[in-house]
Amino acid sequence: MMERLSIIVVERDRDRAIRIVDGLRASGDHQITVIAEETGLARRIAQAQPDIVLIDVADPSRDVLEELALASGPLDRPVAMFVDRSDEQLTRTAIEAGVSAYVVDGLQRDRIKPILDAAIARFHLFHKMRAELAATKAALEERKIIDRAKAILMKARGIDEEAAYALLRKTAMDQKRRVADIAQQLVMAAGLLT
Amino acid sequence: MMERLSIIVVERDRDRAIRIVDGLRASGDHQITVIAEETGLARRIAQAQPDIVLIDVADPSRDVLEELALASGPLDRPVAMFVDRSDEQLTRTAIEAGVSAYVVDGLQRDRIKPILDAAIARFHLFHKMRAELAATKAALEERKIIDRAKAILMKARGIDEEAAYALLRKTAMDQKRRVADIAQQLVMAAGLLT
Repeated sequence: MMERLSIIVVERDRDRAIRIVDGLRASGDHQITVIAEETGLARRIAQAQPDIVLIDVADPSRDVLEELALASGPLDRPVAMFVDRSDEQLTRTAIEAGVSAYVVDGLQRDRIKPILDAAIARFHLFHKMRAELAATKAALEERKIIDRAKAILMKARGIDEEAAYALLRKTAMDQKRRVADIAQQLVMAAGLLT
Repeated sequence: MMERLSIIVVERDRDRAIRIVDGLRASGDHQITVIAEETGLARRIAQAQPDIVLIDVADPSRDVLEELALASGPLDRPVAMFVDRSDEQLTRTAIEAGVSAYVVDGLQRDRIKPILDAAIARFHLFHKMRAELAATKAALEERKIIDRAKAILMKARGIDEEAAYALLRKTAMDQKRRVADIAQQLVMAAGLLT
């Protein structure tokens, strides 16, 4: 038995919605909300903050597929998308939009749970990697900005690198801010002043 | 019709192998190799460098699944794995090992092609992200090592930062090497000398 999940099911067709909800119920006591109307979808999903979004769309065009995928916030939560038919182009569109599972003709009751498992696992793997990338980029940017701030101080005050860094560091400590933030402000101010 | 792919199918069971090959043939004139024996799998796959690996294993244990996934080189090429049964733990193991598609009970002829499409698209997305992460990490590391080399030169020669960087840059140009490589050698040499 899976942990209890809050699940949003995006499904226009009433019969298919019932089948999906039945399939989900078989795998656990989940909190399930069915949304049949695509207007305001992004807002409703963002407000509900579900653990996972399941989108079923029988025969999507590329535009519809892209809109649905993006509205569901695939970078913020796992999104599993079910279609009846696809082609290479559609599949690529869905994957590149960030859906964690893209399943063609797979909406059978017993198959829903493993697909959700896979979508959740894949989302976490991807999320971890995106977080690592964001942190590494931020570290690189901070290093660049601190270097620039040091160079500005060295020139303006005629001090060496160590003294420049010590000055940034002392200012940051005094103001209870991060060195990178102080450096950022200094670089901006120097840009205005010269 | 899909482009022509070189595909390795890892399958012990002869009947299932035939079914898979039939399914693949229906989607294009692919170059298909079936491997029935798992001994030496990693080496054989690495040598063949296929466009995609398809692994079918009816009822895997966690160890078998992990070994097969890793032997297929999921960071170097798309790997689609088909199992008949799974659970949350197995699914997570497969996804975290890096397989691009993990499909439970989905080995139907018509479903193979869209799964391969999805596996290939997902592999490329992931690969791009991993490449970006590696490049950003390398840039950060280079910046750190160049900073360290500059500090060493500034101290040893009593020169300022700009002069230190100019010296690194000139040496790199003279030796037709990258600044980061020269910095790396300097840092290592300084470590040996002091």
